[in-house]
Amino acid sequence: MMLAPDRLFDPEPVQKAAALELYALVRDLPIVSPHGHVDPSLFSDSARTFGNPVELLIQPDHYVLRMLYSQHISYESLLTKEDPRQVWQIFADNFYLYRATPSGMWLEHSLESVFGVSEKLTGESAGRLYDQIDAALKAPEFTPRALFKQLRIEVLATTDAAADPLTHHQAMRASGWDGRIIPTFRPDAVTNLSAPGWRQNIEALSAASGVNITGYASYIAALEQRRAFFRSLGATATDTATLIPDSTPLAPAQAESIFQRALRGQSNSGDAERFSAHMLFEMARMSVDDGLVMQLHPGSYRNHNPQIYARYGADRGFDIPVSAEFTRNLVPLLEQFGNHPNFSLLLFTLDETTYARELAPLAGAYPAVKLGPPWWFHDSWNGMRRYFDQVMETAGMYNTAGFNDDTRAFLSIPARHDVWRRAAANWLAGLQVRHVIDRQDAESMAVDLATGLAKKAYRL
Amino acid sequence: MMLAPDRLFDPEPVQKAAALELYALVRDLPIVSPHGHVDPSLFSDSARTFGNPVELLIQPDHYVLRMLYSQHISYESLLTKEDPRQVWQIFADNFYLYRATPSGMWLEHSLESVFGVSEKLTGESAGRLYDQIDAALKAPEFTPRALFKQLRIEVLATTDAAADPLTHHQAMRASGWDGRIIPTFRPDAVTNLSAPGWRQNIEALSAASGVNITGYASYIAALEQRRAFFRSLGATATDTATLIPDSTPLAPAQAESIFQRALRGQSNSGDAERFSAHMLFEMARMSVDDGLVMQLHPGSYRNHNPQIYARYGADRGFDIPVSAEFTRNLVPLLEQFGNHPNFSLLLFTLDETTYARELAPLAGAYPAVKLGPPWWFHDSWNGMRRYFDQVMETAGMYNTAGFNDDTRAFLSIPARHDVWRRAAANWLAGLQVRHVIDRQDAESMAVDLATGLAKKAYRL
Amino acid sequence: MMLAPDRLFDPEPVQKAAALELYALVRDLPIVSPHGHVDPSLFSDSARTFGNPVELLIQPDHYVLRMLYSQHISYESLLTKEDPRQVWQIFADNFYLYRATPSGMWLEHSLESVFGVSEKLTGESAGRLYDQIDAALKAPEFTPRALFKQLRIEVLATTDAAADPLTHHQAMRASGWDGRIIPTFRPDAVTNLSAPGWRQNIEALSAASGVNITGYASYIAALEQRRAFFRSLGATATDTATLIPDSTPLAPAQAESIFQRALRGQSNSGDAERFSAHMLFEMARMSVDDGLVMQLHPGSYRNHNPQIYARYGADRGFDIPVSAEFTRNLVPLLEQFGNHPNFSLLLFTLDETTYARELAPLAGAYPAVKLGPPWWFHDSWNGMRRYFDQVMETAGMYNTAGFNDDTRAFLSIPARHDVWRRAAANWLAGLQVRHVIDRQDAESMAVDLATGLAKKAYRL
Repeated sequence: MMLAPDRLFDPEPVQKAAALELYALVRDLPIVSPHGHVDPSLFSDSARTFGNPVELLIQPDHYVLRMLYSQHISYESLLTKEDPRQVWQIFADNFYLYRATPSGMWLEHSLESVFGVSEKLTGESAGRLYDQIDAALKAPEFTPRALFKQLRIEVLATTDAAADPLTHHQAMRASGWDGRIIPTFRPDAVTNLSAPGWRQNIEALSAASGVNITGYASYIAALEQRRAFFRSLGATATDTATLIPDSTPLAPAQAESIFQRALRGQSNSGDAERFSAHMLFEMARMSVDDGLVMQLHPGSYRNHNPQIYARYGADRGFDIPVSAEFTRNLVPLLEQFGNHPNFSLLLFTLDETTYARELAPLAGAYPAVKLGPPWWFHDSWNGMRRYFDQVMETAGMYNTAGFNDDTRAFLSIPARHDVWRRAAANWLAGLQVRHVIDRQDAESMAVDLATGLAKKAYRL
Repeated sequence: MMLAPDRLFDPEPVQKAAALELYALVRDLPIVSPHGHVDPSLFSDSARTFGNPVELLIQPDHYVLRMLYSQHISYESLLTKEDPRQVWQIFADNFYLYRATPSGMWLEHSLESVFGVSEKLTGESAGRLYDQIDAALKAPEFTPRALFKQLRIEVLATTDAAADPLTHHQAMRASGWDGRIIPTFRPDAVTNLSAPGWRQNIEALSAASGVNITGYASYIAALEQRRAFFRSLGATATDTATLIPDSTPLAPAQAESIFQRALRGQSNSGDAERFSAHMLFEMARMSVDDGLVMQLHPGSYRNHNPQIYARYGADRGFDIPVSAEFTRNLVPLLEQFGNHPNFSLLLFTLDETTYARELAPLAGAYPAVKLGPPWWFHDSWNGMRRYFDQVMETAGMYNTAGFNDDTRAFLSIPARHDVWRRAAANWLAGLQVRHVIDRQDAESMAVDLATGLAKKAYRL
Repeated sequence: MMLAPDRLFDPEPVQKAAALELYALVRDLPIVSPHGHVDPSLFSDSARTFGNPVELLIQPDHYVLRMLYSQHISYESLLTKEDPRQVWQIFADNFYLYRATPSGMWLEHSLESVFGVSEKLTGESAGRLYDQIDAALKAPEFTPRALFKQLRIEVLATTDAAADPLTHHQAMRASGWDGRIIPTFRPDAVTNLSAPGWRQNIEALSAASGVNITGYASYIAALEQRRAFFRSLGATATDTATLIPDSTPLAPAQAESIFQRALRGQSNSGDAERFSAHMLFEMARMSVDDGLVMQLHPGSYRNHNPQIYARYGADRGFDIPVSAEFTRNLVPLLEQFGNHPNFSLLLFTLDETTYARELAPLAGAYPAVKLGPPWWFHDSWNGMRRYFDQVMETAGMYNTAGFNDDTRAFLSIPARHDVWRRAAANWLAGLQVRHVIDRQDAESMAVDLATGLAKKAYRL
């Protein structure tokens, strides 16, 4: 038994007892997953399976890969399709590297709760565990669709490019399967002029929308068409990533001339920055119009290691955060839309210094602003503790958006929600035994943190 | 009974017992309140009362108001004078929003300790509690002057504009009342060239000081006159707020020409920034001369929501912090005055990243520098814990300035000091049971944190 | 008895018991001290002694001095050689200032564990304790060499200028003494063009290296010669301090022309910044070539108080941190060398906001990057706790470099390592009782944190 029932809770007995009681109320609630990166093709075909243990647990998970790479284990040796048992052995030999990390915690949770593994993963046990997991993955109850139900996922949002035809989402619906998987509108590839392949992305947007993009007006029309299409397939939200959350709009003529330069392949870096800022403002304007909740994820310096990017592409563990600034950058956007009753802006950060300094005061005052959960590197036991500590007093819990797992690793979803529910129960129990809230409040807050806040914030 | 005697203390029994013993030493000490924003007119007339519960507890408290506004409750519905019971009902219906916030904690403390309220404020209990509080407020023991004594306030400092005639402070003295309420010299409205109504503020300064301000020299003379006047009414400190704590002085000719442009209404934003920096330096120079303790409160971006500012004015919950930098910005000021035996500079921050990085090292080295307590959004249980954690090891406790409540909400004063005294006892108990300090040290430190450090830092 | 066996551990009994068991495993391990500032001349002559208590414990320790100065006690009164008993009395009278500070903790540890002092240092006990310590220091078992052995120091690295002839290191070797004390190559005085006496430092470098420095090429050759010489005396690492860790290289012609301007005394501040950035890159290049581990210590604004600097020189408590940025600044260096198997870069910070935001993600991905321990102001109980909290989940413990004491105060070495070993045991016990790691993992991690990680990171 690796997973103790009281794991993660603070050890003081009175507080732990209170935490266990609160946790018992939410442990088995369905999972609401309003933001993530699971591949929708897993669910469009009822016969689809997960492949072998390495394809499922290691190769798609850059949290896992980058830790091995940081210790001089090459990506070649990890990404090969030749001999998955050998990759698994390398992983097991080095599994000690994940001690006290979220990746280690999620993996152990998946192995035990999904596959019934009860021994520690080591170089010695590697082969046995590979066989056990591999055998399970061939069974019908381990297809993606079967696990979706077994894990009690009520709703799962994917993240999809603006030009994505959403083929798999359509196929899911056409198949009559009743799992609720909805798309999220992610326009970065067409709003960031310096995104790789921007010109082709625009062509794809033209094709997908049926709008011939010849200038700024038709570009906006195409985006609006796609948003409507995403909404028709259940989308309730958009997602925008920027390095800096500048939201200064351009005058129409400026937007047009920058866009035309970009179409001609003549834009400069200043163009890209100013156009990104403008499109942040514009995405807010569209959200006011169509009611899609706007998510903003700033502050990740992408592909910091050009050697790795050149050979293995994006999402290899080399997106490194930079400091963030919201107070000044969001002035134009909030001045225009921050008081609008139809607008909802969910802010995320990789810079925890902004929790207490900027984000909580903004969320605690503007009706349009709510705070997303601890994100990415901060989606961990300590990250959650720091979030509760630094956000809640000023923002107020009801100006936060519950949890989202933000993962590509489907099997880590229940593990991540379980950590969050435990972290929430532990936080609330701490407040309860300190008499900051009473038991009745704590129970109501635990349920809201588990599912209620996310449903409300994402209009699900 | 809402307020448990052991509320807020860490639950581990040995540490809690130590905390309770330390807290017992300081719980009933008089309140020293060296910085705040209570309206002095409350005390100038012995017949003055607080009005109804809404006028007392909700409408003047922008901590309370902004939380309701953040959930789409309009300022119109909250600020109306028409039907206070309806405002109270809205507040009670939404009181769950304050769960786990300092505002909620302070309010519950006031309701129970001042008004004897022992039931939870809900939509259902709203009417009964309104009646109970309203009835109390009509009793003679609930006048401001009576409560000042009952709450054991030893000294209360208000914050007053440089041009303020201090009519109410003079009236208090003239009335023979012996409550010690002293003014604090706040020059921002005349040192910040882009302050609303700067030109009229200068005229008011001329009128108040009797110095005809025609240029920089007479302006400085007027300020010096006012400082002397404030001192004559008991002031021991000044207070300056800036966005950025730049302290670079101007050459006399530059100061004069900027000031003349400002008098003519022709100053630009660069002028305002440079003049603010210069006046920070100049305020330090004056403090060396006259012995007034200098407080510096940087880093608040004021009136972030222009729609709210236009309709409801300042102090409506939309002052949002920005990151702060002290190390480089204070070089000119500290180079000149940091070693001076007569100078005392109290630094505050809304950017907690500066606690361990900049403020504690500065306070732990410069004889002139002390750190003010956790400020504004950080004046909370967690904020205090982070302050003790991040400041004390490097600054040393004796380079800090104790507590101040910084409030406009008179009734929250005892609640805030109680939270601080509990936080201090909890921190010291934690050190004691870890054998970092002994019991004798802990007792001495508890008393200093409650009142001694504040009296010394503010020269009271 | 001042030093309780369970001091510093969290009080919850189950966790404390686990911590005590882990601590027992590492308490008596030898000390590995791979970075510090102990004076090597203490060990080059077997007859060398420490002098009186004031010369040993107060005057060389700017942690201690600056706290007294911050309370208006003059450096004159502290640095005098006239009457050490009087200096000791001032120190003892004001020893309460060190309550709850690391300096206080280290001093009490040294007094009790080295000198057997068991009473509290106060104004009253000052004279007795002075006599007790002074008598001990005259005994043969209290020479530096004897204490080096008695304190079980396995290896001690000093920090030495590039032009240092390493006379004392050579004398130690020549004397046949078997204590392992190794130099560390610190090039700042010749790579920072605005360092005091840069031109003379270059001449000293010429003299020490035997390379006549007439331009950039001979300058690089001289540095390479010195690195080889340091290695011949056991050095395994270099150390570079910069204000900002910019690592942008210059084109060769630019480097040459800036260097020539500097030789002529005509360089400007822009030159110094660009050349420092270039030399950061160049030091990495040399480390790839010769295998010396590269340490980078950015972010200290040196000599912030010019009055103190002018009268008493450097290292008087007025080096104040500024905010740091690694993600963008290290792009050039990591792009070139970050994946190289022979390169090892140890990053330190005085800006704790970079722990979780930048440093842990970089160390958790780049094979060349490891994180040094909490540094300087953060080398404290709370600083260590914050480091474990904010670094380990993302970086992974095996991408950190264990502990180093970084001290000039020889007697504080065991005290500092003891605090670290307790902090590590406390952290691991917290994880163990929360079932994040098991007991077996915790034991292995405790030993690695005590000595294993440092030996590996520094190639000792």
